Amino acid sequence: MDQWLKDDERLDYLLAEDLRIIQSPSVFSFSLDAVLLSRFVSIPYQKGQIVDLCSGNGVIPLFLSARTKAKIIGVELQERLYDMAVRSVQYNNLEEQIRLINGDVKEIPSLLGVEKYDAVTCNPPYFSINELSEKNVSEHFAIARHEIHLTLNEAIEASSRLLKQGGKAAFVHRPNRLLDIVTAMRENRLEPKRIQFVYPKRGKEANTLLIEAIKDGKPDLKVLPPLYVYDDNNQYTAEVSEMLYGNRG
Amino acid sequence: MDQWLKDDERLDYLLAEDLRIIQSPSVFSFSLDAVLLSRFVSIPYQKGQIVDLCSGNGVIPLFLSARTKAKIIGVELQERLYDMAVRSVQYNNLEEQIRLINGDVKEIPSLLGVEKYDAVTCNPPYFSINELSEKNVSEHFAIARHEIHLTLNEAIEASSRLLKQGGKAAFVHRPNRLLDIVTAMRENRLEPKRIQFVYPKRGKEANTLLIEAIKDGKPDLKVLPPLYVYDDNNQYTAEVSEMLYGNRG
Repeated sequence: MDQWLKDDERLDYLLAEDLRIIQSPSVFSFSLDAVLLSRFVSIPYQKGQIVDLCSGNGVIPLFLSARTKAKIIGVELQERLYDMAVRSVQYNNLEEQIRLINGDVKEIPSLLGVEKYDAVTCNPPYFSINELSEKNVSEHFAIARHEIHLTLNEAIEASSRLLKQGGKAAFVHRPNRLLDIVTAMRENRLEPKRIQFVYPKRGKEANTLLIEAIKDGKPDLKVLPPLYVYDDNNQYTAEVSEMLYGNRG
Repeated sequence: MDQWLKDDERLDYLLAEDLRIIQSPSVFSFSLDAVLLSRFVSIPYQKGQIVDLCSGNGVIPLFLSARTKAKIIGVELQERLYDMAVRSVQYNNLEEQIRLINGDVKEIPSLLGVEKYDAVTCNPPYFSINELSEKNVSEHFAIARHEIHLTLNEAIEASSRLLKQGGKAAFVHRPNRLLDIVTAMRENRLEPKRIQFVYPKRGKEANTLLIEAIKDGKPDLKVLPPLYVYDDNNQYTAEVSEMLYGNRG
């Protein structure tokens, strides 16, 4: 095991997918949002090319690899997180399917080529720099969570450039950014087609937004059934439990 | 009874509010959407002025009268529907609180005064003229349902003009128009603050959108808990049943 892990890293299970992933409590651990996005996005199953922006420790490429035979490229700015993702891909013997790039999302379309990809996923930093209030937070967390090196507009613009006509861009974000997201998408030839709101439990406001747009698509938005994370007893709902643990739950 | 009714009209109950309303199957009957909007909108309780645009047979002013002491003005273009609304208001002895105007929404701000009202509600025609496919539909239904005399943009612009700063505009519409609504609202100084999606039942896509904006408000959108109309046995859910029938259900 030691050959794979550094410092305080640990090798966690992605139970539902029979995969494992390297995480570190002090640097980055994937969130439920990444899992939700991996399940939400429409992707080709047999072939094609998918790009995941802001990959962190590679959780979305790993999850997607269980859903498709398409090639997946993960892009992560932070070398420390990129390095974790590379080792997780190696550990799972997925080097043939998943390629990781340590780079800046803004430069990725020039690097990878434009109008070329079938789907782009992105779990971007959620908070504006103004909201950067936690003093002692690690730099890794700050960059992953705040729009320090990448704004929402930049992430959406990069997604659109990468996609071919008819390609899908899927984002996860906070519901209070809904209007900014749809405005930026429409300004970048991405027409929102599917939205799903995620509620922590019954009777609460939504705290997560999943949205998928089609490049040059026709306006026709659908709002999918709501997704609840916890039931009234504060246990994961069956739907979320299956995402996380498969049918073992 | 005959003194109140014409042709095929009937006097229906608004059970939850102990009110009655004149309807006509061949001309106009209120929909659940109007009830949902009446419950959704934020209104002043003790005093103030509210305008309901596209009032139809006056269902929203009648419902609102049970929630507030504020003055309510209902605006309806179609004289036949306006006439039903006037008689319903008289039947319920609400002439002091509810005033009805037979007029064009586009001209209403000039008539009633701008930057003056605390809240505006609107259950506008849902369908574009292009969708006007039902050949034998009555003219009354066609005007109430289709954007023949009033587009969504015009309704939103009129709402904004009527409202004072901080006033609320609440609309009910179909979810596939969400992007058009929020775009038009922002273009008219209306910042969307609360959204609620209504689902016919569990597992189905949303078929109704409730949205409230504040004039010159700061961006901070909340997505309220979802509302289901029917339960798994195709009965009204407790929440909707109470809206329609009060606690008698």
